[in-house]
Amino acid sequence: MTDVNDLATRLRAGDIRALARAVSLVESAAPEAPALLSACFPHTGGALRVGITGAPGAGKSTLVDHLAHAWRTSGSRVGVIAVDPSSPFTGGALLGDRIRMRERATDDGLYVRSMATRGSLGGLAGTTADVAQVIEASGRDVVLIETVGVGQDEVEIVRLADVTVVVLVPGMGDDVQSLKAGIMEIADIFAINKADRDGADRVEKEIRAVQSLASSHHAKTADVWIAPIVKTIGTTGEGIDALLATIEKRRQWLASDDRIQARRRAYWRDRIEAMLRQSLLAEARAHGLTEAELQSHAQQVASGAEDPYQLVPALVARLFGEK
Amino acid sequence: MTDVNDLATRLRAGDIRALARAVSLVESAAPEAPALLSACFPHTGGALRVGITGAPGAGKSTLVDHLAHAWRTSGSRVGVIAVDPSSPFTGGALLGDRIRMRERATDDGLYVRSMATRGSLGGLAGTTADVAQVIEASGRDVVLIETVGVGQDEVEIVRLADVTVVVLVPGMGDDVQSLKAGIMEIADIFAINKADRDGADRVEKEIRAVQSLASSHHAKTADVWIAPIVKTIGTTGEGIDALLATIEKRRQWLASDDRIQARRRAYWRDRIEAMLRQSLLAEARAHGLTEAELQSHAQQVASGAEDPYQLVPALVARLFGEK
Repeated sequence: MTDVNDLATRLRAGDIRALARAVSLVESAAPEAPALLSACFPHTGGALRVGITGAPGAGKSTLVDHLAHAWRTSGSRVGVIAVDPSSPFTGGALLGDRIRMRERATDDGLYVRSMATRGSLGGLAGTTADVAQVIEASGRDVVLIETVGVGQDEVEIVRLADVTVVVLVPGMGDDVQSLKAGIMEIADIFAINKADRDGADRVEKEIRAVQSLASSHHAKTADVWIAPIVKTIGTTGEGIDALLATIEKRRQWLASDDRIQARRRAYWRDRIEAMLRQSLLAEARAHGLTEAELQSHAQQVASGAEDPYQLVPALVARLFGEK
Repeated sequence: MTDVNDLATRLRAGDIRALARAVSLVESAAPEAPALLSACFPHTGGALRVGITGAPGAGKSTLVDHLAHAWRTSGSRVGVIAVDPSSPFTGGALLGDRIRMRERATDDGLYVRSMATRGSLGGLAGTTADVAQVIEASGRDVVLIETVGVGQDEVEIVRLADVTVVVLVPGMGDDVQSLKAGIMEIADIFAINKADRDGADRVEKEIRAVQSLASSHHAKTADVWIAPIVKTIGTTGEGIDALLATIEKRRQWLASDDRIQARRRAYWRDRIEAMLRQSLLAEARAHGLTEAELQSHAQQVASGAEDPYQLVPALVARLFGEK
């Protein structure tokens, strides 16, 4: 067993190898993970968590690189988690292997970690949340979380962000159709990337149209954040300053009226519930619901011999009835 | 309380209003739902479950209409679940409001139900699975499950299908990028729809390329199903016969060597686990973990006063310690 307290002390002191080791322990749900996360917890809560999401090919990674570089230049310590839950066939998790590699070697103020852990024990969102905690505890002012796509997993992942930037690109079929798929709700800021392409104005217009539709559904209060739209060109860095300024504006908005606390309370309510669900299942397994037993029930149910809607309550009653 | 056994008897006898009522009870996780699902369970397991998934705009609904019509013509009784977990803004669940409406009014052999229950109690995949059980129990030979997109939720939903058709369209940015996002694993059949458009051949070539890459990763056994590719034109109905024949081929493949039983065993193993996880949490709540307590813990954690990684094990210990 790794000495968890020693590891936590070292990662907090800026030891990158200790940080990498700690992230691996958490990612693999090692037995040490809970104690390690406990040791890290008091050193979290202060960093700004920025989510960057959008379809493959939208240029998220380039934007993340620009943002990370800008924050480094202003003296902030930055962590990046690049989540790519892609096919095992096509590899995935290659996001980090870019220009970052160069910086990483020489700058311990920038830590980049790629993850592709679809099917991880606590779910991808849970694992990402835990990894973010460890990275933040290593003295980061900003933690960037980059996710591909806008599936349910991604929505759950960006919930842990204080600011979520949704990256769209003109002409990728990324417009009205994607807006339909739940993007509007999670976007705090829209970045229209590759904005020198035809159709950037059209994408902007479409976002505005959906926003005005949405705002007519809301109560008219001053406390509504209408997601600003920023145009960027990743290849040249154009618009990055405006994106940074918009993120900063969002940070200030969150800081007033206890908004960030309210957001984080809501986040932790759901996160505690998810952790509890996971732990209860683990406990159930420890109390005798072995994999063999589960498989045997599955066989009975698949053949029609056992009714799952009666089986599950019976299992729960047995588990809770035990001391 | 609804009389569950009476409702089950009526829906099995073909009473469409009883079926609609039963689906609503299950969808809303009404107190009667478990008993109703138990009453339906003995009358399930025989239907072919076909999943149809793909990006918005791919023409899934039109294909589903054609397939449903073809099965009806050959005398099969058909159920359709159209899952559209879209934005509350943009409405969602409008999928069913199409030409189907016409048929539905006059043909009780075709039952169509739209669902848009993101955030439902047992998760969208769980609710869809339960709804599929109820619909199948109403004497359906085929249950079609249509889902939008390829997020994690959708992947979980199509797991309950025996045959999953992934619908792609030329020129929608739907090619290599989407293949990356996990489509290859879930596709049993690819339908290249709108195949009269430019680029249909290119999409086919790309699928073949990824398949040959994938097959080099697999052990060379005879028991591997390489997903066939069918070209369709939804507007004219071209290729529907070929798609039907391919689904039938898949059904026959599944019928041999106990494959369908193996697939369903694996499905039920995960489904029982998911049900158990949900039930354990419900039980935990019944044993005194009130919403107020959860909210209070969330506040403590958000403010840094309480460590969630110690809190959750303590809660679990308390819950399992109780009689």
